[in-house]
Amino acid sequence: MSATLADRVLAGDARAIARAISVIEDESVASAELIRAIFAHTGRAYLIGVTGPPGAGKSTLVDRLITEIRQRPVLNTHEHDGASASGVGVGVGPHPNRLTVGILAVDPTSPFSGGAVLGDRLRMQSHAGDEGVFIRSMATRGHLGGLARATADAALVLDASGKDIIVIETVGVGQDEVEIVRTADVSIVTLVPGAGDEVQALKAGIMEIADIFVVNKADREGSERLVAAVEATLSLATYREHEWRPPIVKTVATSGQGVPELMEAIAAFRVYAERDTGPARVSARALRRRLRSEQRLRELVSARCVDHLEREVLAPGEFATFVDRIAAREMDPYTAADLLLGRVLGGSRRS
Amino acid sequence: MSATLADRVLAGDARAIARAISVIEDESVASAELIRAIFAHTGRAYLIGVTGPPGAGKSTLVDRLITEIRQRPVLNTHEHDGASASGVGVGVGPHPNRLTVGILAVDPTSPFSGGAVLGDRLRMQSHAGDEGVFIRSMATRGHLGGLARATADAALVLDASGKDIIVIETVGVGQDEVEIVRTADVSIVTLVPGAGDEVQALKAGIMEIADIFVVNKADREGSERLVAAVEATLSLATYREHEWRPPIVKTVATSGQGVPELMEAIAAFRVYAERDTGPARVSARALRRRLRSEQRLRELVSARCVDHLEREVLAPGEFATFVDRIAAREMDPYTAADLLLGRVLGGSRRS
Repeated sequence: MSATLADRVLAGDARAIARAISVIEDESVASAELIRAIFAHTGRAYLIGVTGPPGAGKSTLVDRLITEIRQRPVLNTHEHDGASASGVGVGVGPHPNRLTVGILAVDPTSPFSGGAVLGDRLRMQSHAGDEGVFIRSMATRGHLGGLARATADAALVLDASGKDIIVIETVGVGQDEVEIVRTADVSIVTLVPGAGDEVQALKAGIMEIADIFVVNKADREGSERLVAAVEATLSLATYREHEWRPPIVKTVATSGQGVPELMEAIAAFRVYAERDTGPARVSARALRRRLRSEQRLRELVSARCVDHLEREVLAPGEFATFVDRIAAREMDPYTAADLLLGRVLGGSRRS
Repeated sequence: MSATLADRVLAGDARAIARAISVIEDESVASAELIRAIFAHTGRAYLIGVTGPPGAGKSTLVDRLITEIRQRPVLNTHEHDGASASGVGVGVGPHPNRLTVGILAVDPTSPFSGGAVLGDRLRMQSHAGDEGVFIRSMATRGHLGGLARATADAALVLDASGKDIIVIETVGVGQDEVEIVRTADVSIVTLVPGAGDEVQALKAGIMEIADIFVVNKADREGSERLVAAVEATLSLATYREHEWRPPIVKTVATSGQGVPELMEAIAAFRVYAERDTGPARVSARALRRRLRSEQRLRELVSARCVDHLEREVLAPGEFATFVDRIAAREMDPYTAADLLLGRVLGGSRRS
């Protein structure tokens, strides 16, 4: 089944992509088979991470960005004015001179009401009939880290399907979500005036991951104050010569104002990040990609180890007895973990 | 060292508590020793989780809550009016008739500027000289899940030190952060009018974890609309008889308005959650505690397994070669993880 599905994903079939991401969300064995089958065909897409607090207008901004990307005939961008999309990628989709886009909107947990699915439908409408755009919400309820894992694999599916640009949009500023965006090829942090004071924004823990800042809803009162606060924070850091200093782009996503400038900033960062600089003469983009691979491998080894323990080593219900003893304070979690690791290494199989 | 430190933590020494939490943030071996030494003395504190989007006023709300808790002579609450703190706990600190409080403010990643530390100092001032209050920001930059692990351990330290109430406050709505709050004894979700539309709030993925909703800044325009939106969402769920239906408490944290009512709601939930109901005649609180233990054990086994692999099984730099091969698309991450798990089980030691 997975071989066929993988083939259809590689052919860019939208229904197969949707199905493949569902397989990934289910965390089934088929998901590993699928990634194995497509992995060699990944690594071409350019990954844009967008994060920021709820209410910052990320969805609208991403929608505008998609429209901007889709409207530009990529091969002609050098004839455009300064606000061109040159350097962002090369079209390989069904419209050979347009970039194709996949969007993953990450919801940390699913809401009561299936709001994520509803959101998908609303957003789909503005790109309805455009085969070069694929939009999907991710909302896995699994173990810790499950969402990061699923999102990384879903991005691989979009990549393998030939999408030139993948946008990963995360609500929230959680550690997993920050990791998702941090390891993208370019990280965009979206802030908004008036959603709490500036200190709050600075404390939200999303400042140091930004390659580009967006101050959205820039027509609102307080936007200049917010820009100044971000500037002040940036001025605390020292940047070496030729080092990237995150620009601050002001946008009004609802009207599209500032979106061409954001595209410019992305293109400029891409040029910067693909230079072979830094201590090891390795490009910033290659470093990010390596970081993504490392993160992915650690997560998988961790998950595999616990799976193996529960399925192959322990008797049914045995893990639960360890949990009960910890909950009853009869055993501390470190001692329990040592005992369980010993069992994994001892390899005592259940009868 | 850790034995002495553990003894001083158990004696409630504030400097030892601070030192112990630093040890935990460093993820050193001493951290495991410390938890082993104190674990049997934990399990008494009542854990309050507070989350919500940035700018919702969580810090101010928690500050007010602390003041409220500290001002009430607990043993006398039954003589108070309806808005009493009865049922929230029993004082054992230096002021035997007041509840002692520990606060962990979780920042998903540290900001440029040490804002978390600054925040601590600002907040400390309003409880300066009160030995019954301990405030600490958590901002570990480690592997995925490292912050959840460190926060759970820091809560154990506060618990062992004799704090009656532990408040864990998280900015953001990330998966790890949601897990931290979800498994607290009571989960409070703080919303605020005007920080994005209502759908945004509902989509933020923090709705289904709430035992209590707080609509803060309730004097602002739009607060009734937000309350109605939360009510509408709640009305979509069906609650069995005697099942807890999350109340919505309106507060103005800056003035303290609504804080006594929030205390009441917490006390009512505690009474509810300690009843032995549900399918297995187990109380909701016992289930949460079990969930915390399970989560903790899974995390630790995962981390131990990867540690063991890197330190004991693989040669130095060998893990990096796997990462390089994945980054170069020469090997997929699932195949690499299988090979590495095989090495763990094979137990081939480095020479």
